[in-house]
Amino acid sequence: MTSAAGRFVGVDAGGTCAKICLVDARGAQLRFVTVPTEPERGPEDFVRRVKGIVGTWEFGGFGLALAGGVDENNGSLLFAPNLKSWIGFPFRRAFARALRAPVTVENDANAAVWGGYVVALKKKPRSVIGVTLGTGVGGGLILGGRLHRGASRSAGEVGHQTLSPSGPLCRCGKRGCLESYAGTRGIQRSARRLMRRLPSPLTPKSIAEAARAGDRGARKVWEEVGTWLGLGVANLVLSFDPEAVLLLGGVARAGSLLLRPVRRVLAEQPFRRPFSRLKLTAPAGRDWGCVGAALLCRELR
Amino acid sequence: MTSAAGRFVGVDAGGTCAKICLVDARGAQLRFVTVPTEPERGPEDFVRRVKGIVGTWEFGGFGLALAGGVDENNGSLLFAPNLKSWIGFPFRRAFARALRAPVTVENDANAAVWGGYVVALKKKPRSVIGVTLGTGVGGGLILGGRLHRGASRSAGEVGHQTLSPSGPLCRCGKRGCLESYAGTRGIQRSARRLMRRLPSPLTPKSIAEAARAGDRGARKVWEEVGTWLGLGVANLVLSFDPEAVLLLGGVARAGSLLLRPVRRVLAEQPFRRPFSRLKLTAPAGRDWGCVGAALLCRELR
Repeated sequence: MTSAAGRFVGVDAGGTCAKICLVDARGAQLRFVTVPTEPERGPEDFVRRVKGIVGTWEFGGFGLALAGGVDENNGSLLFAPNLKSWIGFPFRRAFARALRAPVTVENDANAAVWGGYVVALKKKPRSVIGVTLGTGVGGGLILGGRLHRGASRSAGEVGHQTLSPSGPLCRCGKRGCLESYAGTRGIQRSARRLMRRLPSPLTPKSIAEAARAGDRGARKVWEEVGTWLGLGVANLVLSFDPEAVLLLGGVARAGSLLLRPVRRVLAEQPFRRPFSRLKLTAPAGRDWGCVGAALLCRELR
Repeated sequence: MTSAAGRFVGVDAGGTCAKICLVDARGAQLRFVTVPTEPERGPEDFVRRVKGIVGTWEFGGFGLALAGGVDENNGSLLFAPNLKSWIGFPFRRAFARALRAPVTVENDANAAVWGGYVVALKKKPRSVIGVTLGTGVGGGLILGGRLHRGASRSAGEVGHQTLSPSGPLCRCGKRGCLESYAGTRGIQRSARRLMRRLPSPLTPKSIAEAARAGDRGARKVWEEVGTWLGLGVANLVLSFDPEAVLLLGGVARAGSLLLRPVRRVLAEQPFRRPFSRLKLTAPAGRDWGCVGAALLCRELR
């Protein structure tokens, strides 16, 4: 399809920056722009700025991913620690008026999981767990081929499962959450303990580069982080028994450094059945949130 | 309804004993029988013995719950540690021929959760997590108002989520599973550590009686067990965001001794949203497996 109807715009607005893309019906990116979100300028200003960028593009639908819980009826934020001043604003109506296109609004982790699901999993399994790995660890569940949003629109908070109640303090206030081990801060903590010479800046990316360059401490960091992530993924698989697990987000770009220990933990699980045919993948690509938002608006049609 | 069509037979066959009941369309028990399963006598013999008991009853459908993974297409066991010699036997066809009634076959934990769901939750929420508490800790998920069986028919193994990788050895071979704390053995272990005078026999029931009689050590046992159970339930709620959590099985009869610490852990969760309207209940009654099996065959009609 080359007509406007077969192209979709996706926007993924986080607390710091917003990614904007134009994709075709398969999720291939035709255009890509990043802008500062600047939430303090208010939601109307954000709508105007997005219109200024995409107003001349041709597309058949518009999807918005937001870092928070979304009421899908009116496309507004219900809760959002990093976009507090935007809570309650009717984004669906505002963008539909500004762009004269069908609009869908979704939580950012759900949108990313949807993007990875549609683009990376060709067989479209019925049930999938997606884990988004970055500063925070979040996720989304696909059930019966659709996003499972949950009774309070907050399903998929897989990063705050407790893996060890005496573990390190998490940003959320609890101890030993998956995020406290596999989020950026947890990875940095492991690096400070296990690496002799710390790269600067100390980021998941620089720690992965050190590991690939042969740094033994850095390799141990990924072994440790992947072991905790494997425990968290195993817990989810034992409950949900999905066909596939998607690892997404910046930290997933560590690739086999992360996947190898995760696979080892899954292979060690004594109850084999839900793991024996499980597909585990960290698909290449990075902008799953805005791609997924664009593809979710395709679902509306 | 008083006709046969509004009555259903349920059978819950475990490794040791089988419970057989006749229920009305709401799940009220009209008859109840327990027999030894004696799996070594073979599945045909079991079908004959069940027919000998229920053959004179009037009912419109028959549901069988089995301790293992069930292929719902032909109603046979796929895996079953305690009913190994029954694996592969086509129970659906055998019972349909023997009883000339519609037959459904289901995993026992799923059947119990379905029974608790239909009988105890009047509003029929769309998504529910059920946890079955006994020697083992298992469970089942109701998503979209239906049992979620999972890609390998093994969803709901919530008792083998890791809560502390350095915790006590579980029957399954892992360390620190929910079951290793909240299953019968875990409760007995807590009692041996915390109680000065151990009741004989040392069972969840006798420990609950001691706690109700004022034994401080016994109260600490339930406080500890309920805290671990609360952590496990919180993990599940953060991922699935259900409307309700059902605690079922013999250990759930500890009632408020168990529910109080679980509620405390849920109330302490920093991410409030999925917990704020969550219904947590341990419904009275015991034979949810056979009641649920009977009510599942009603779903066929």
